Amino acid sequence: MNTSGRHHVVVVGGGFGGLQAVNKLARADVDVTLVDRNNYHLFQPLNYQVATGSLSPGEIAVPLRSIFRGAPRVRVVLGEVTGFNLYDREVAVAPVLPETEAYKLRYDTLLVSGGSSYAYFGHEDWRSTALEVKSLDSALQVRGRILQAFEAAEVETDPAAQERWLTFVVVGAGPTGVEMAGQIAELARDTLPAEFRTSDPRAGKVLLIETADRVLTAFPPSLSARAKTALEKLGVTVMLSHTVVGVQSDCVEVRALDGTTTQIPARTFVWAAGVTASTLARELGEAAGTEVDRSGRVTVEPDLTLPGHPEVVAFGDMVRVRDPKSGEGQVLPGLAPVAMQQGRYAAGLVIDRLASRNTPPFRYLDKGTLATIGRAKAVADIRGLRLSGFVAWLTWLVVHLFYLIGFENRLLVLTQWAFSFFTHGRGARLITEAAQTPTRESVESARE
Amino acid sequence: MNTSGRHHVVVVGGGFGGLQAVNKLARADVDVTLVDRNNYHLFQPLNYQVATGSLSPGEIAVPLRSIFRGAPRVRVVLGEVTGFNLYDREVAVAPVLPETEAYKLRYDTLLVSGGSSYAYFGHEDWRSTALEVKSLDSALQVRGRILQAFEAAEVETDPAAQERWLTFVVVGAGPTGVEMAGQIAELARDTLPAEFRTSDPRAGKVLLIETADRVLTAFPPSLSARAKTALEKLGVTVMLSHTVVGVQSDCVEVRALDGTTTQIPARTFVWAAGVTASTLARELGEAAGTEVDRSGRVTVEPDLTLPGHPEVVAFGDMVRVRDPKSGEGQVLPGLAPVAMQQGRYAAGLVIDRLASRNTPPFRYLDKGTLATIGRAKAVADIRGLRLSGFVAWLTWLVVHLFYLIGFENRLLVLTQWAFSFFTHGRGARLITEAAQTPTRESVESARE
Repeated sequence: MNTSGRHHVVVVGGGFGGLQAVNKLARADVDVTLVDRNNYHLFQPLNYQVATGSLSPGEIAVPLRSIFRGAPRVRVVLGEVTGFNLYDREVAVAPVLPETEAYKLRYDTLLVSGGSSYAYFGHEDWRSTALEVKSLDSALQVRGRILQAFEAAEVETDPAAQERWLTFVVVGAGPTGVEMAGQIAELARDTLPAEFRTSDPRAGKVLLIETADRVLTAFPPSLSARAKTALEKLGVTVMLSHTVVGVQSDCVEVRALDGTTTQIPARTFVWAAGVTASTLARELGEAAGTEVDRSGRVTVEPDLTLPGHPEVVAFGDMVRVRDPKSGEGQVLPGLAPVAMQQGRYAAGLVIDRLASRNTPPFRYLDKGTLATIGRAKAVADIRGLRLSGFVAWLTWLVVHLFYLIGFENRLLVLTQWAFSFFTHGRGARLITEAAQTPTRESVESARE
Repeated sequence: MNTSGRHHVVVVGGGFGGLQAVNKLARADVDVTLVDRNNYHLFQPLNYQVATGSLSPGEIAVPLRSIFRGAPRVRVVLGEVTGFNLYDREVAVAPVLPETEAYKLRYDTLLVSGGSSYAYFGHEDWRSTALEVKSLDSALQVRGRILQAFEAAEVETDPAAQERWLTFVVVGAGPTGVEMAGQIAELARDTLPAEFRTSDPRAGKVLLIETADRVLTAFPPSLSARAKTALEKLGVTVMLSHTVVGVQSDCVEVRALDGTTTQIPARTFVWAAGVTASTLARELGEAAGTEVDRSGRVTVEPDLTLPGHPEVVAFGDMVRVRDPKSGEGQVLPGLAPVAMQQGRYAAGLVIDRLASRNTPPFRYLDKGTLATIGRAKAVADIRGLRLSGFVAWLTWLVVHLFYLIGFENRLLVLTQWAFSFFTHGRGARLITEAAQTPTRESVESARE
């Protein structure tokens, strides 16, 4: 109970799942506290467009507060959740703001949706060299590195060093990897050539490295083949059945199936391989005395509650859901629609309980999967209907615009896209400080 | 001469002046190299809107390369100019990119327009506490600090500490200071109140501290008075005839004319007082054996050339122009129109010389001055025609949209403004990493 006397739901994580849950709970007679380490909700499927300069951060991220400004019983707090005390029903929150203190949040029901990040095959030391494009901050850094590489090539006089600056390696051919490789190739081929005088961005090489024997393994093989052809038409070199075994600042080492290794000189690396659940999954697992799986996911009951803790509900990328028949924990795809459906389900569960109603187990309704490759090209698998090319891309466009939160953002994104589409330009190609590899000076001054 | 055999003009600085110069030179039969430490041109008069979350960086900054993509004889290079060798006609360029080397650029004619920054009354140690909003990076940092202050107030339980988080001090009541104070007040009063639950942004205090006895001293006193009234209506406390004598992380100390000092507890400080020329002015002064003035400006001839060096032209905020009659160095206002007119003049001078034509001395044509205060309020002094309120604001809007480079940007900015105007919302209120005061952890990880 809160001081208001209402049931208090704490929601951890303002991603797709958390947002849907809060949205539904806002209309119920409960108090809600939403905790996130960022002050915004990120429309992550378009983050790769920030990383390649097509969209600005403000176009795909919305302040959480502004989403819930009309919901007086929803409170948003900025903080990093560091642990749970399931016995006392408390969440420990560490400050993300300077000069503020850690504190605890009491809950009646706890909803946790901490998401996932990329795993580096156990090589955490590769993380600073091969950046991922999961968070908005890392997307801005990737944007800076890509643009800086073209800038460095322009002032580099040694041909071998110049070639190295113009080689881009993307690791992992899932949707994000495919999108990134396609976008970098378009940047090099369409957007930049007219703007450089001594280097030729068209000479740029984009390599997409994938351990599996096809790209987009979540799609049917026929669509994987089409996506590969589309990527190659854009100039991307697709290296299948190759695993990255080493990452250095000026080269990447890959191993083929036969065990032979090759060094590829390059300067810019993007990581989009391997997924690991939020560390909050492990926290919950430990608190409940359950193991997490190899990818760090905690297994929850068919109604998404934590085993032995019906007052704790977890969902999204960080969980496996136990199948009521087999008893096994199933992994649903780490996609926005899964998290969104689970978030709405979790809110419904809370509401049903307060009304003493039963809730049937969660079931995922698969509406289809989409991935875009480049300008006006995509693949789509919608309940067995397989689309590719322009039609798939139009579908992708409509779906993404439809789900972009906020009318203003939709308008801005559409304006940017329309402009990019007709001119091959990119409106957000800025190298700002966030995007720069920090120099000794900036680090020193930051310490002051 | 360049390898092409054409006259080579090196232009240092891609601000308003540099851009106009390059734009004009692009149509002449010369090679141009434009050097800037950033890869973009910043529309600085709207930077305060980035600092307060109304506009995104991509909306007021355009990549320099994209501006000159259609000009094959214009080359853009990213680099920090560190010095000049006027004897050998060389510019020393330090790399701003990681793992690239310093180099020298040979010129036939050199155009320098390095701009200015804020002076901290000799207290450089105040710079990291009281940020300025001159660069895009610092505007993003200011945005982060302002938004973080409201976030911190929301989780702060001690009333005195909460009040401190909700107190904002703006130093200097020139156009930027007035704009910042007005925008912060609007943010606290109109945009945020509905979004906070335990703190009240309306309780926020905005103080505007100015040494002079009126705001906007560049305008006639009657407009200063109207601007002050408009600010006070927005809830800004205007402290005239007060000088800042101390800045700490949790308070600012001001001194009145009678010598009494007062401590004002606050957490967020914005600096918009005192102007100092780019250090390039001093470099040029030393190279030419001339002194710089108290604000670091170098005095140039009536045709903007460096004394004794007709092949070096300097303009914009960093120069005084010698009056051909009195012989004295005159300071023109540090405004975009001055720099733009001088940039075009400098390019014309180069073109005239190559055609062996004489060029009359530079003359500034004052078209008027504008400053905005808040939503739909501004003051304008257009050749003696004094406007204030909505009409002045409409004038301001048209002038600023007209000068925003790039059709796409104009469209985006108009969309954002229209949206903000009708909803009192702000589309770009993100606290990204660039905006955060670095924590020990982030600094440590950045060092790795």
